[in-house]
Amino acid sequence: MINYNPKDWFIFIFRFSKADTFRRLLPLMIAVSIYAGLIAYFELNYLNAGQAEYIRHVGLMHGVLGFVISLLLVFRTNTAYDRWWEGRKIWGGITNSSRNLAIKLQAITIDPDDRRFFRLMVPNYCFALKNMLRENEDFSELDPVLDLKKERHLPNQLAAALYTRLNYMQAEGRCNTAQMLVLSEEIKALTEYCGACERIKNTPIPFTYSVFIKKFIFFYVMTLPFGWVFSMGYFIIPVVVLILYALASLELIAEEIENPFGTDANDLPIDQICHNIRKHIDELLS
Amino acid sequence: MINYNPKDWFIFIFRFSKADTFRRLLPLMIAVSIYAGLIAYFELNYLNAGQAEYIRHVGLMHGVLGFVISLLLVFRTNTAYDRWWEGRKIWGGITNSSRNLAIKLQAITIDPDDRRFFRLMVPNYCFALKNMLRENEDFSELDPVLDLKKERHLPNQLAAALYTRLNYMQAEGRCNTAQMLVLSEEIKALTEYCGACERIKNTPIPFTYSVFIKKFIFFYVMTLPFGWVFSMGYFIIPVVVLILYALASLELIAEEIENPFGTDANDLPIDQICHNIRKHIDELLS
Amino acid sequence: MINYNPKDWFIFIFRFSKADTFRRLLPLMIAVSIYAGLIAYFELNYLNAGQAEYIRHVGLMHGVLGFVISLLLVFRTNTAYDRWWEGRKIWGGITNSSRNLAIKLQAITIDPDDRRFFRLMVPNYCFALKNMLRENEDFSELDPVLDLKKERHLPNQLAAALYTRLNYMQAEGRCNTAQMLVLSEEIKALTEYCGACERIKNTPIPFTYSVFIKKFIFFYVMTLPFGWVFSMGYFIIPVVVLILYALASLELIAEEIENPFGTDANDLPIDQICHNIRKHIDELLS
Amino acid sequence: MINYNPKDWFIFIFRFSKADTFRRLLPLMIAVSIYAGLIAYFELNYLNAGQAEYIRHVGLMHGVLGFVISLLLVFRTNTAYDRWWEGRKIWGGITNSSRNLAIKLQAITIDPDDRRFFRLMVPNYCFALKNMLRENEDFSELDPVLDLKKERHLPNQLAAALYTRLNYMQAEGRCNTAQMLVLSEEIKALTEYCGACERIKNTPIPFTYSVFIKKFIFFYVMTLPFGWVFSMGYFIIPVVVLILYALASLELIAEEIENPFGTDANDLPIDQICHNIRKHIDELLS
Amino acid sequence: MINYNPKDWFIFIFRFSKADTFRRLLPLMIAVSIYAGLIAYFELNYLNAGQAEYIRHVGLMHGVLGFVISLLLVFRTNTAYDRWWEGRKIWGGITNSSRNLAIKLQAITIDPDDRRFFRLMVPNYCFALKNMLRENEDFSELDPVLDLKKERHLPNQLAAALYTRLNYMQAEGRCNTAQMLVLSEEIKALTEYCGACERIKNTPIPFTYSVFIKKFIFFYVMTLPFGWVFSMGYFIIPVVVLILYALASLELIAEEIENPFGTDANDLPIDQICHNIRKHIDELLS
Repeated sequence: MINYNPKDWFIFIFRFSKADTFRRLLPLMIAVSIYAGLIAYFELNYLNAGQAEYIRHVGLMHGVLGFVISLLLVFRTNTAYDRWWEGRKIWGGITNSSRNLAIKLQAITIDPDDRRFFRLMVPNYCFALKNMLRENEDFSELDPVLDLKKERHLPNQLAAALYTRLNYMQAEGRCNTAQMLVLSEEIKALTEYCGACERIKNTPIPFTYSVFIKKFIFFYVMTLPFGWVFSMGYFIIPVVVLILYALASLELIAEEIENPFGTDANDLPIDQICHNIRKHIDELLS
Repeated sequence: MINYNPKDWFIFIFRFSKADTFRRLLPLMIAVSIYAGLIAYFELNYLNAGQAEYIRHVGLMHGVLGFVISLLLVFRTNTAYDRWWEGRKIWGGITNSSRNLAIKLQAITIDPDDRRFFRLMVPNYCFALKNMLRENEDFSELDPVLDLKKERHLPNQLAAALYTRLNYMQAEGRCNTAQMLVLSEEIKALTEYCGACERIKNTPIPFTYSVFIKKFIFFYVMTLPFGWVFSMGYFIIPVVVLILYALASLELIAEEIENPFGTDANDLPIDQICHNIRKHIDELLS
Repeated sequence: MINYNPKDWFIFIFRFSKADTFRRLLPLMIAVSIYAGLIAYFELNYLNAGQAEYIRHVGLMHGVLGFVISLLLVFRTNTAYDRWWEGRKIWGGITNSSRNLAIKLQAITIDPDDRRFFRLMVPNYCFALKNMLRENEDFSELDPVLDLKKERHLPNQLAAALYTRLNYMQAEGRCNTAQMLVLSEEIKALTEYCGACERIKNTPIPFTYSVFIKKFIFFYVMTLPFGWVFSMGYFIIPVVVLILYALASLELIAEEIENPFGTDANDLPIDQICHNIRKHIDELLS
Repeated sequence: MINYNPKDWFIFIFRFSKADTFRRLLPLMIAVSIYAGLIAYFELNYLNAGQAEYIRHVGLMHGVLGFVISLLLVFRTNTAYDRWWEGRKIWGGITNSSRNLAIKLQAITIDPDDRRFFRLMVPNYCFALKNMLRENEDFSELDPVLDLKKERHLPNQLAAALYTRLNYMQAEGRCNTAQMLVLSEEIKALTEYCGACERIKNTPIPFTYSVFIKKFIFFYVMTLPFGWVFSMGYFIIPVVVLILYALASLELIAEEIENPFGTDANDLPIDQICHNIRKHIDELLS
Repeated sequence: MINYNPKDWFIFIFRFSKADTFRRLLPLMIAVSIYAGLIAYFELNYLNAGQAEYIRHVGLMHGVLGFVISLLLVFRTNTAYDRWWEGRKIWGGITNSSRNLAIKLQAITIDPDDRRFFRLMVPNYCFALKNMLRENEDFSELDPVLDLKKERHLPNQLAAALYTRLNYMQAEGRCNTAQMLVLSEEIKALTEYCGACERIKNTPIPFTYSVFIKKFIFFYVMTLPFGWVFSMGYFIIPVVVLILYALASLELIAEEIENPFGTDANDLPIDQICHNIRKHIDELLS
């Protein structure tokens, strides 16, 4: 994620950062401007007046479809943003559950071994989840407190280890039933957050919507010059490019943020969240 | 469900897959283009100038109604997508509850028979629910651990069996009250997810909305050529086809995803989710 | 509720069922078409050119107000649909709570008298709630297990009876504290669903919105002919009728579904839900 | 709140009740019609053709800003309605919690003194909350069961009294731990509903939005005649008045319902809800 | 936060307070009016008729993009408002949890030392959270009941202290298990509200949306004069300024309220909420 000051308009408008859709759309915008120029050249030089009068009114269609495409792109923006924000809420929930676990354990547990176990394992859970979501089966960020099987579902193994330890502590009389209930609720919450992350990661918006929106933008922008050339002449070129920029940007941004757990410029700062969890749990359980 | 890379624009725009609305709407689009052509031929050749001047302004209506139909289709899209996404959340919840059951049971239960019972029965619940939602009373995917009555509600029988076993384990002293409470909560959650699936499956959007939207699209597209023929001549044909494509696609996609538990190309990957549940529970309880 | 196959376009478009707004709006549509015809006749024959030129541009207003009215009707559609869907969720919740009660009771209770009591009383609660929502104080669908006072709040009496029985079972040692807690949670849920139904039933959208939307549609459609007659001549008649159909249909449908517990064609299938609850509880507790 | 039959169109359209925005906006509408008349008189008589041609196209601006203002007013309508509906849900929740308390207490408590205490105190809580929300420190509706300090937060004192009594009953052995836990949950819920009511009451939408929407409507309506006079002549007067009516009504209604706990015509029927609570608790605990 | 009477239209329209976007946009509006004037001067004096005819129709683009930008700004407004309102809900939740803690403690705890501890520590938690959110590590508002380490996460330390005390009270027999469970739930809630505040504070809307909206407004307003000068002449100047005011205001307001925990004029009244919490807890626990 890029940190920024939202009130810094000047920089926003004139700097074209790497994540900026303007930069990513540039090749496409050049191609479309050539296309629009060719259409304009052809229509202005080779069509007779009768045809021109007819074709000019094709622009009426773009008015009507303009609503549909705008509303559809805002629907797309909304669902993508909701996924992104739900992802953020999930990781906020993971932070909360980890903290609650640590706050409770520091009051309950005296045994230094138990404390050490949870101080290492709770952050391990977060890092394992992060790695799973990024399909990066890297164990280097995990503290080696127990044997894990790489080919199996990693967070599940860690949750099972946490719960087993808790059960064992209760059996040994190092925590009572009420405490055990309260603590196991937090571990349950972690498993649920894990499932929610997998849901967002594995379920993009339905295939047909994705196809339809892209086809729609394409047809809309490609048919735009036909009708408007007789009204605008070669001014059609910047106009088509600007409209393409506006419509395609919305789709591009939505694509990027709808899976918020990656390492794109706009994805969630999961690395930082994981390190904060480790830091705060260290503070509480040290 | 179709897996796809949302950033692959080229393929999206130029390939017409089976699920694509373009392909499904093709016959209708051809019919409408013939219809528009006939209207255009008739109006351009047989109407006098006065009538033409009047009829040309009928297009004003399509401007005003264009908002209404666009907003209505986005309402339709939103509700269909919400149902689809709620369906996905429910199956995510089923995954979570199954996992939590297994994580807790692996810590609590030592008895190999209990473990085996839950290792088979929890995935059985998911498969039974899937079959019920698809109205496919097929028992072949279920492990035969107990007698089930085909004519009765299958998931209810399985939930009752799970809960009875739990109660029996507590009575036998193989799990304590607190554990029993925590485990029965997960079984309750499974029953609630089952009810939520049935709700989505059995309740399409109200009949009159469905009728009204279809009638509205029909009237809108059918009256479109009357007003615009004098502005566009025979260019009316591709214009009407494109508008039909845009409007009817939205309705078609909504129809397909509003009941997300079937086997349509855009439905949820419930088969895969069920198999994942079986796999993860096997890992945890083996 | 009408069961239908949402993919059956042909029938939707050409059949005019009883619930169809087209049929219900027909008298109004005829009246408005006569009105529009009179306005057209008057304007086309008695106004001079200067006045005509001015009055023709009154149509500009309908463009601007067209957004407002469309957005307002979609707001209306959304809130009505939300109430309808919330109503469906509540009855889904009632189904779930009844099932959970039965699933737990079949495992806990051995006493045949207790089983019989709950097998009759839980469906009774649902039927009593249904009757109350329909203001139809009919006791014939209820199994007479206990004395009920007609003038008092019926579902409350049944919930009190359920809870008292549970308390009595615990006092008699026929269920333990943990089971009692879990079961009373479901009875609490039933009471909450009852309150939610009463909320939806007794609170239509605020009076002024309802008035304002109806006045707005009326003024909008009634002023439409003035401006557009000079552009369209007598074609104004079908145009005004179509616009009236589109706008008034949305309001009509919203009115019908915003109180979803009645017996209108689009209301929820509460009768069927109640009978399903009775059937499934019979299966579980017999 | 005004009770009404939403299907009674005729009355809605032709009766102008006190709560109707038409009546409240009448003075403003007269003022604006005079203003528009003056602008029209001036422009039609004193401007030359060149200026007229230019100023006429200022109307283009109103097209573009028409979207923004419509969407903004629908945003306003949505947030106001959400607050109103949340307020209704909160009072529905208060009804539910009171009922649940009474249903449980009637089964648990035999002591007539305890029953009397709760029969009076639970409705007292609701009346105290109502009075606080209306800033009407009137004790006359409360049954005097205990001493209350007027200058302190009244619902808090009542919740504290309820909880203290419960604690005392448990200490005296008149209810057990499990019952105590369940009952205290309902009292907690009442406190949370109280906080939610205070939140809605004390937090209108952000000041700048409120200012901006009002300024925007003002500028929009005031600049409307300039551009449209040359198209419409003196017809501008009814047109501006109608547009003012549509836009200002939405803002007026939103203002009225965004704080739903008052005694405006469209506010929630809290008085009636409170009396229903008292009646139903009397039925259950008598 | 500014307290105001939402029905005071006159003041809203004619007073330009410090928080008003009109005042903050004034320099930009002057700059843009000069820019528009220069464009108008150049185009009206130096372009030939053919170019003028073409360039005049560039305005068609602004119609189509007008939808997109309006919808996008309403999306922006919605998300910013949702964050603001969620922030308000969180602080309402903190109020509720603090009150519930105090209501329960006043009934349970007799020990004056325990009461004093919580009377000071619960408000301390709120003030510490407020200071952390404002990045103002000021301890002067906190009552010094225990040693806190400045460099560590302050609310976490306080939550740990609260929970440890509770645990200690239980060990000493000054509260029982059930009470301990209920109280620890409230402390858990406080930690969760703390996490939710941090989430809102640390996660602005995705960088690319922020950039895109600002670029879009800029390009839209800057290209506006080109097309409209030939229609409006120098009237383009107020028109562009008004459009700029409408669009940029929405973005400015959204920027201000999307982080609602600061000290901007429209931010939440957290100071007052914290003082209310201290006052009400004092009333309950004194």
